[in-house]
Amino acid sequence: MDFFSYRDGQLYCEDVPVDRIAKEFGTPVYIYSQATLKHHYDRIKAAYAEFDPMICYSVKSCGNLNILKKLHEWGSGFDVVSGGELFRVLQAGGDPGKVVYAGVGKTDVEINAALDAGIAYFNIESEEELANLARLARDKGKRAQCALRINPDVDPKTHRHTATGKRESKFGVDLDRAMTVFETFGKESSLSLSAVHLHLGSPIYSAEPYVEALEKTLPFIDALRAKGFAVDTLDLGGGLGADYQTGQTPPTLEYADKIIPMLRGQNLKLILEPGRSIAGNGGLLLTRVIYTKAGGDKRFLIVDAAMNDLIRPAFYGAFHFIWPVQVGDAFVPERREECPPMDGLEKVDVVGPICESGDFLAKERMLPPAQRGDLLGVFTAGAYAFTMSSQYNARPRAAEVLVDGGQCHLIRRRETYDDLVAAERV
Amino acid sequence: MDFFSYRDGQLYCEDVPVDRIAKEFGTPVYIYSQATLKHHYDRIKAAYAEFDPMICYSVKSCGNLNILKKLHEWGSGFDVVSGGELFRVLQAGGDPGKVVYAGVGKTDVEINAALDAGIAYFNIESEEELANLARLARDKGKRAQCALRINPDVDPKTHRHTATGKRESKFGVDLDRAMTVFETFGKESSLSLSAVHLHLGSPIYSAEPYVEALEKTLPFIDALRAKGFAVDTLDLGGGLGADYQTGQTPPTLEYADKIIPMLRGQNLKLILEPGRSIAGNGGLLLTRVIYTKAGGDKRFLIVDAAMNDLIRPAFYGAFHFIWPVQVGDAFVPERREECPPMDGLEKVDVVGPICESGDFLAKERMLPPAQRGDLLGVFTAGAYAFTMSSQYNARPRAAEVLVDGGQCHLIRRRETYDDLVAAERV
Repeated sequence: MDFFSYRDGQLYCEDVPVDRIAKEFGTPVYIYSQATLKHHYDRIKAAYAEFDPMICYSVKSCGNLNILKKLHEWGSGFDVVSGGELFRVLQAGGDPGKVVYAGVGKTDVEINAALDAGIAYFNIESEEELANLARLARDKGKRAQCALRINPDVDPKTHRHTATGKRESKFGVDLDRAMTVFETFGKESSLSLSAVHLHLGSPIYSAEPYVEALEKTLPFIDALRAKGFAVDTLDLGGGLGADYQTGQTPPTLEYADKIIPMLRGQNLKLILEPGRSIAGNGGLLLTRVIYTKAGGDKRFLIVDAAMNDLIRPAFYGAFHFIWPVQVGDAFVPERREECPPMDGLEKVDVVGPICESGDFLAKERMLPPAQRGDLLGVFTAGAYAFTMSSQYNARPRAAEVLVDGGQCHLIRRRETYDDLVAAERV
Repeated sequence: MDFFSYRDGQLYCEDVPVDRIAKEFGTPVYIYSQATLKHHYDRIKAAYAEFDPMICYSVKSCGNLNILKKLHEWGSGFDVVSGGELFRVLQAGGDPGKVVYAGVGKTDVEINAALDAGIAYFNIESEEELANLARLARDKGKRAQCALRINPDVDPKTHRHTATGKRESKFGVDLDRAMTVFETFGKESSLSLSAVHLHLGSPIYSAEPYVEALEKTLPFIDALRAKGFAVDTLDLGGGLGADYQTGQTPPTLEYADKIIPMLRGQNLKLILEPGRSIAGNGGLLLTRVIYTKAGGDKRFLIVDAAMNDLIRPAFYGAFHFIWPVQVGDAFVPERREECPPMDGLEKVDVVGPICESGDFLAKERMLPPAQRGDLLGVFTAGAYAFTMSSQYNARPRAAEVLVDGGQCHLIRRRETYDDLVAAERV
C-alpha cells in the first residue's frame, strides 16, 4: 500500500505529479512518499500496541538522514549494522538509547563508538564477538547491554542471499550453542546478557516462519530463565515483505495476529526491526527512456537508470513493477502485477546504459508502448535500492527527493563527476 | 601473471610487504602493482605489434585517475562507456583522440561532451542512437567518427551477466540489420561510419569466440566495401581473461596467434580494448580477519572486506584466490588454485560484515588456519572490483594504493563517515 497513484493518466506521488520532479531534479531520481513511510510505521506500531514495542527502523533498508529524522520524530528507534549507520542515526538526531546494533563483523572502533553513544543493545552474533565486547566494555568501565542472536534454523522462503536464519548462515548462534554462550558470558560483569534476538531474512511473505521460530525460541527462553538468566527482552527482527505486486504482502495485522498470542504472558519487552515493510513501498525510481531498440527478436527500452542505481533485479532476480508515468485511459493500471490484463501491451526488456548484460530492470515485461523521452516509474523502490547503489561505469548516483503532500524536498543532491574522483586527488 | 608473491612466508606486492600497507593505510585496502599493469599492457602491445593497434584501456575495469595517468604515459588510449568515464580520462590527461565510446544508453549531454572533446570513435549500439548522434553532430557542425557495433551471435562461454555478443543481448546490431544501418546512415554528412566494433563479453578464456566472430565479421566488412562503404578500422573489443587461478588464461600471444593471421592483408586499422587482462592481476584486496566463528557445521572467517567492496563472488559466482599474508613454509602456495595440495588446511567460508547471506568472498574454501587479526589477500582483484564498490550498510569505501617497486602511493583515500552523508545535507 502506498501513495503513488494515477490521476487522469498521470502518475502522482501524494499530490505531486512525478513529471514535475523529473523537470526540477532530472532523472534518474528516487522519490519517497512521506505519508507512505508514516502509514507503514503507524500500522506496525498499532498492530503490536499491546506490547508497546521498541520499533527500531532498519537503517540499511533506506538510510537517508532526512528520512531517519522523520522516523525519529515519529518515535522510532533504529536498527544499525555498522559504525556508519550509527553515525547516520546520530547525525539525524536519533536517540542512541533506542538503537540496536547487529552484524557479524563489528570492529573494535565500531564497538567503542557504540559503547560511547550508549546504545540499547548489541545484537551478538558469535562467542568471539561477545568476548571482545566484554573486553572493550571492561576497558571503558561500562556494562554492555546484549541480545544474543539465535539462529533458529528456519527457512524464510526467500532469496538465498537474504535468508539469514538458516543453520548454515553466518548469522547468530544455533540453539545448541546459545545455552553455552549464556552459561559462559551470562554472569560477566561488563555485560548484561538479558535479551534474545531473531532475524530470519527478508522479504518474508507469511507469518509461518516467525511462528516456527517462536516455537523454538520461547521454550529456549524458558530454559534460560529456569537456569537463572534474567531474560526480559525479545527482539523479533524484521523481514516483513513489501507490495512489489499489489496485495503480495499480508497486512501487518495478519502477521501480528499469529505472533501476538504466542507472546502474551511471556513477560518480554518486544523489539521490532522493520525496514522493507516501511520503506519498500515508500519509494519510486523515476527514469527516462533514452532509446528504444530492436535486437534479435527482442525489443529494448534503454533507460537512464541502471543496475548501479537499482541492483535488485540483477542481484536477487527481484521483480519491480514498471509503468509509464503518463498513460492513456486504457493503460491506467488497476493493480501492479506482472501481466496486467490489457490489450496493446508490448513485450520489452527494460535495460540501463551499463556495459553488461546483467544491467536490466525487467526482462520480457508487458508494457504500454513507450518512446524515447518517456518517463517510467519503477515502483516499490524504497528499500535496498538507493542504499545499494554504486558508481559503476563512473555513473554519479541519483538524487533523492522526499514528497510531503504537495511539497518536494531534495534530500540528497545528484552526484557530480567531481564527486567521483574527489578522493583520488591525493 | 603478476608481481604479488611470497618471500620468506610474507606476501609482497613488488618489493613492498603488504602488511606494511595495512599498517600505514588500514584495511580493507586495494593494492595495485604498477609493474603488473605495465607488463600486461606491454604484452598486448607486443603481441599485435605488426598492426600497430590503438590500444584503448577499458576504464570501467579499473578507473582510478592515477592508474589512467600511467596508462596514458605508456601510450594507451581509452575505452569509455559513459560521460563520467570520459571525464576521468580527461582529468587523467588522456588523449581524447585515442578514446572510443561504447554503451547502449549515451545521453545527449554525454554525446555532446564527447563531440566537444573530439573523441576517436563512437561505438554505435542502435539505429536510434546513430540518428540522435547524427542530429547532435549536425547541430554542432561536426562530423562524428563512428564504429557500428555488430552483434555476431557468438557464445563467449562466460557468465550470463557479462556475455554481450549473443543475439538476445542489448548490445550492438545483428548482422542482418547492420547492412541496413550502413545503407541508411553511411552517407550521412554529419557522420563518418568507417569502422566496425565487436565486443563479445568478459572474461573469455580461449581464442575461439574471437575466431568465430571474425569468421562472420570479415565477410561482412567485405560486403560493406563491395557496396562502397569505406570501412578502414576494426575494433576487436576486449574480454580477455585474467589469471584468477594460475595459468587459467592463455598468454596474450596465444590469442593473437589465432587472430592475427585472419587480419593480415585485410587493410584494417586495429583497435583493442583490454581491461581485465591488464588490471585483473594488477590488484589485490587486502583484508583482516575480525572474528572466527563456528556456526552449524560450518567455520567462518569474518573479515573486514565485504560485498560492498568486492561484489564479484556474490554477483557472478566468481572465484578469487584468497590466502593469508603471513604463512609458514608448509603453506606457501606454489600455484593459486581452488584446492592447493597441502595438509592441514581448513574448510571455511570467508564472509564480510554485511547483513545478508550473499555477503561472502569465498564459500567452503580450503585455507591455512587463520585467527582474529590475521591479514588475508584476495587476489586478482584489480578489475571490476573497486569500480563496482558501493557504500551499502553505510560502509565507507576502501583506500587504493599503487605500488611501484619499493614505493607505495595512496591513490584514493579511504572514505569517511562524513563522505557518506555529504550530499544529504541540503
